[in-house]
Amino acid sequence: MTQKIAILGASGYTGAELIRLIATHGELDIAALGAFSKAGQSLAQVFPHLRHLDLPDMVGFDEIDFSEIDLCFCALPHKTSQEVISGLPRDLKIVDLSADFRLRDPAAYEKWYGNPHAAVEMQKEAVYGLTEFYREEIAGARLVAGTGCNAATGQYILRPLISAGVIGLDDIILDLKCGVSGAGRSLKENLLHAELSEGYNAYAVGGTHRHLGEFDQEFSLLAGREVKIQFTPHLIPANRGILATGYVSGEADAVHAALSTVYVDEPFVEVLPFGETPSTHHVRGSNFCHIGVTGDRIAGRTIVVAALDNLTKGSSGQALQNANLMLGLKETQGLMLAPCFP
Amino acid sequence: MTQKIAILGASGYTGAELIRLIATHGELDIAALGAFSKAGQSLAQVFPHLRHLDLPDMVGFDEIDFSEIDLCFCALPHKTSQEVISGLPRDLKIVDLSADFRLRDPAAYEKWYGNPHAAVEMQKEAVYGLTEFYREEIAGARLVAGTGCNAATGQYILRPLISAGVIGLDDIILDLKCGVSGAGRSLKENLLHAELSEGYNAYAVGGTHRHLGEFDQEFSLLAGREVKIQFTPHLIPANRGILATGYVSGEADAVHAALSTVYVDEPFVEVLPFGETPSTHHVRGSNFCHIGVTGDRIAGRTIVVAALDNLTKGSSGQALQNANLMLGLKETQGLMLAPCFP
Amino acid sequence: MTQKIAILGASGYTGAELIRLIATHGELDIAALGAFSKAGQSLAQVFPHLRHLDLPDMVGFDEIDFSEIDLCFCALPHKTSQEVISGLPRDLKIVDLSADFRLRDPAAYEKWYGNPHAAVEMQKEAVYGLTEFYREEIAGARLVAGTGCNAATGQYILRPLISAGVIGLDDIILDLKCGVSGAGRSLKENLLHAELSEGYNAYAVGGTHRHLGEFDQEFSLLAGREVKIQFTPHLIPANRGILATGYVSGEADAVHAALSTVYVDEPFVEVLPFGETPSTHHVRGSNFCHIGVTGDRIAGRTIVVAALDNLTKGSSGQALQNANLMLGLKETQGLMLAPCFP
Amino acid sequence: MTQKIAILGASGYTGAELIRLIATHGELDIAALGAFSKAGQSLAQVFPHLRHLDLPDMVGFDEIDFSEIDLCFCALPHKTSQEVISGLPRDLKIVDLSADFRLRDPAAYEKWYGNPHAAVEMQKEAVYGLTEFYREEIAGARLVAGTGCNAATGQYILRPLISAGVIGLDDIILDLKCGVSGAGRSLKENLLHAELSEGYNAYAVGGTHRHLGEFDQEFSLLAGREVKIQFTPHLIPANRGILATGYVSGEADAVHAALSTVYVDEPFVEVLPFGETPSTHHVRGSNFCHIGVTGDRIAGRTIVVAALDNLTKGSSGQALQNANLMLGLKETQGLMLAPCFP
Repeated sequence: MTQKIAILGASGYTGAELIRLIATHGELDIAALGAFSKAGQSLAQVFPHLRHLDLPDMVGFDEIDFSEIDLCFCALPHKTSQEVISGLPRDLKIVDLSADFRLRDPAAYEKWYGNPHAAVEMQKEAVYGLTEFYREEIAGARLVAGTGCNAATGQYILRPLISAGVIGLDDIILDLKCGVSGAGRSLKENLLHAELSEGYNAYAVGGTHRHLGEFDQEFSLLAGREVKIQFTPHLIPANRGILATGYVSGEADAVHAALSTVYVDEPFVEVLPFGETPSTHHVRGSNFCHIGVTGDRIAGRTIVVAALDNLTKGSSGQALQNANLMLGLKETQGLMLAPCFP
Repeated sequence: MTQKIAILGASGYTGAELIRLIATHGELDIAALGAFSKAGQSLAQVFPHLRHLDLPDMVGFDEIDFSEIDLCFCALPHKTSQEVISGLPRDLKIVDLSADFRLRDPAAYEKWYGNPHAAVEMQKEAVYGLTEFYREEIAGARLVAGTGCNAATGQYILRPLISAGVIGLDDIILDLKCGVSGAGRSLKENLLHAELSEGYNAYAVGGTHRHLGEFDQEFSLLAGREVKIQFTPHLIPANRGILATGYVSGEADAVHAALSTVYVDEPFVEVLPFGETPSTHHVRGSNFCHIGVTGDRIAGRTIVVAALDNLTKGSSGQALQNANLMLGLKETQGLMLAPCFP
Repeated sequence: MTQKIAILGASGYTGAELIRLIATHGELDIAALGAFSKAGQSLAQVFPHLRHLDLPDMVGFDEIDFSEIDLCFCALPHKTSQEVISGLPRDLKIVDLSADFRLRDPAAYEKWYGNPHAAVEMQKEAVYGLTEFYREEIAGARLVAGTGCNAATGQYILRPLISAGVIGLDDIILDLKCGVSGAGRSLKENLLHAELSEGYNAYAVGGTHRHLGEFDQEFSLLAGREVKIQFTPHLIPANRGILATGYVSGEADAVHAALSTVYVDEPFVEVLPFGETPSTHHVRGSNFCHIGVTGDRIAGRTIVVAALDNLTKGSSGQALQNANLMLGLKETQGLMLAPCFP
Repeated sequence: MTQKIAILGASGYTGAELIRLIATHGELDIAALGAFSKAGQSLAQVFPHLRHLDLPDMVGFDEIDFSEIDLCFCALPHKTSQEVISGLPRDLKIVDLSADFRLRDPAAYEKWYGNPHAAVEMQKEAVYGLTEFYREEIAGARLVAGTGCNAATGQYILRPLISAGVIGLDDIILDLKCGVSGAGRSLKENLLHAELSEGYNAYAVGGTHRHLGEFDQEFSLLAGREVKIQFTPHLIPANRGILATGYVSGEADAVHAALSTVYVDEPFVEVLPFGETPSTHHVRGSNFCHIGVTGDRIAGRTIVVAALDNLTKGSSGQALQNANLMLGLKETQGLMLAPCFP
């Protein structure tokens, strides 16, 4: 018997990706697609690539009968999300893909996002959605906060190393390269094909990217002391993909061992043989994360590179993985699609 | 119970696409992967995006025990294919993705491919693999010849129109735009990123592209007279996708009606509402073909545009669809993946 | 001694391209850069790639002293352009890059652009800016209307053939592929990298593209009778470039001869040896147009392919070429940059 | 009066870029184009984008009369270059674009390139071609060794900082992103459009990239002690461009001041206002290098980002800049082309 789900914010890229994944899931039934400005439009109008699916039209949120819904995905912009979720039934299972419930501390939220949080109580209730590290809490949660896509990638590299104590905590650098879909379906000049294609640049340089809020929260919690990393994202002319290059002090073999141990039984995170390097090409369109470890020519320095698809493992795939846990389904259900290469 | 398949030529793009599709099929088991120069390598070496799959290493063809195989896909270069297939057991079910068995007439084969055919008897036995039009023959066939990817796209536009007699036969023009993966994983200067990215060009101009052999064969057979079309392919800086723009004389509503009638129950070919235009974006990575019809401002002239993914519906997806028929499986099994957009 | 020029609409792509070309011209001095919403910004803010140039900031149009200006480029949106130009001094030399003065007939303008023309008198005065065919009129003109970029490409193919009487006039088809910069620096969803990259589609199918107004006007004038062609543009994932594939009835050698004769002394239009095919790669960033002619396998059918850069030969390069003529300078001044490949 | 130059290895990308730049130089005359496998072909065959130039065909090296040549560019693969240059007249001025004469120490050469050097004497004679730092030596040199394109980018960031003593020398990290043309016109699987487009990856991870030989040589020389940096290059799906992100310990304002002081009068290297970040988009096709400095949220940590075009400032533009010096011409002659954007 299928369970019924709703997607709020179905007209954005993470919404489309949720639908793409659920289309072959088999045990989930999309009962409602909610949108703002595109309410009233059919799925074929909003996303012609999904026109083969027999799904309801986009509707305003107030037209959705949430009492029939087993789980609701919220793929809304941050700030909007907390307002909308505040108005949903208190017993509705929710996977939020926005930034609104990632930070547990209201002050941290306000610092990084510039406005006071409108649903502080729910902020406390929310479980951080990095599946591999919060699996049990997620399974029992009502509200799960999907992680930032960059934040997920960095944590896949660094969490096991911090936990295992195999790296220094005061000189961690994460140089990250991400494709353009991470910025969403937003009409900004720098996201135009003519502005982006064939060139690349750093942005949010110097420690101003909001995903640092997640790194600070999670790494400090893990280490039992404050950990602040350096983090520079770069915008790359590709639609999907995050490649994070981590520079750490620590022995490469210990780093590789720590990662291998943690991920050995994980269905989606794969540590490559020592010395191999991942590519975003090889995870595109899939829920997989590949991690490679190499020792530097400078003794005691190690480079760890991770690749995942920001829309899948970094966002909608993670959301579905968490929803599977929350609904008592097989965690990998609907998520074993092979990457689409070339 | 799963059926066992082998893939010969597994190290090329159509081989990879077959594996990607079969990975979520559920009723097929890949028992052998055959390759030439990459024999001995693991799948992870040849295609790192498929490293999560538990599949055998690439082997030489003589290491494969075909008696255990229920169906063999041959994803080899043309000419090689006929030689290899000649040596396979005569009762082995085969879906050939090369050009070798598409043309029934040995003289036509020699004209378009420049060498005499080495397996003329098998050439006669082979069924042309355009599923929607040869479904019954395919279901009963031993050897099915996958169509050219461009040839498939053009036929999806033109076959119903020729059959219905709604267009003129002497002034058909097909202007086709295709992505680069159609050229295969071959080391040619014009396929390098630096040579191809950010520019585009026509090639095989003037009626010299080999897929014209298929058009001539099929359209003349359908029309009961010789039909020769004009056909110009263009190489576009994208990895996947074929967009064919057909210019015909005929009334647009009759054209739309003819196409709609033929494809109304087809699971993979969708005729868009009159006046809408398809895009390769919306079929990428999927087995769908979208067709749009528009009347021109010049009375009696109609434009028909079709979009599909050359690696899927144009090649490996078609091959799997045919294999499903040959093995008595559900035709759509493993093929309902939604397109990957953005 | 340099002559002073102003550019109105300097913050768009054609404005940027004008500046890029004029930067190495040597005899033109950019005295004013006019913009609307970006007035007050420096050139480095609006176009960081031009930051090395010592040029004035963007200003509102009313801040420009046109009495000091020898020639003004208007790179504004259509409709805005006619309003702005109406208010400029009547003796100011102007090269307009918009669509506003391309059509001589007010009724034709209203038909294609949907609004009555606001400067009908000036419409009559304007000279059509296809340099190779209006060279003398342009040299003596006060107001020159730059052609549509698609319209230019199509005319480079067809004008010599219509004039020479070597092709039929009732079955001309122009299938055109253009890069995204032709759509300008406009915030539209379909121009986002994530929507455009890796896919392509036809648009304005069926004879609705506005550049048909130019084709109709010019071809009918040339032929002395009404000529209506079929024209389908396609949007290609590349920033620059137009490739037009023309299908005509006529003998290929006569077609090649007609083109070769007309362009033999032209500095920017090159007819390739018979049977060769041009590529947008080979004209990118330059003012060159390459034309190739091939006979079809069907007797009496010929394919002509032309390639140019929409921002250069299709727009700003053409504008500068015309300005050179209007100012009594060498026509090729500032325009001999070699294409940028790869 | 023009001076005569020859280009050996004219059929590669750096050869093409030299020709593109020299085409508008005005004081250089290309007297000979030498090639290996493409000897006998015309320039239009090898590089159709340069077909408008009236230049000699490609010839074998032994067909060139070097006594007539004022300066010879060698754009050959490393190892080949030293062999060819050994056979050229001893008084011929040469700018070598290969890696063969960059390292002064024969042992260092052998360590990084795997073979003993075949022209050790000339290795000593060669001047390292980073113009801004070896200007006087270059002006008087007979043989100038063009730098690695990555090596140039890193040095533009780090040389002034090491010289000024404003950064620590033991924890320098350079994370570099480069376009595909840096790999040359070579037929490798990973350089195919289908393999590269839409994805990205690190390579030569861990300190194995050959350009480290240049960093080691130059930085140690500058610092008066051994300096070893960490360096990770990444391959980005774009044709041109290098973006280097440098992570250093040091005060951001001192870093910015040191860079600004060194480059204040340089025509091609521009230090952006503090806190601004460069992009490869804004240097594409030009000889400019943009450098941006930002302080990190972590006190005492600074990020410096530099962008240049690998084919121009990173290779052929640098070569021409050096040739201008060697020939007593204006250093910027032929090099002031504005970047090509979009």
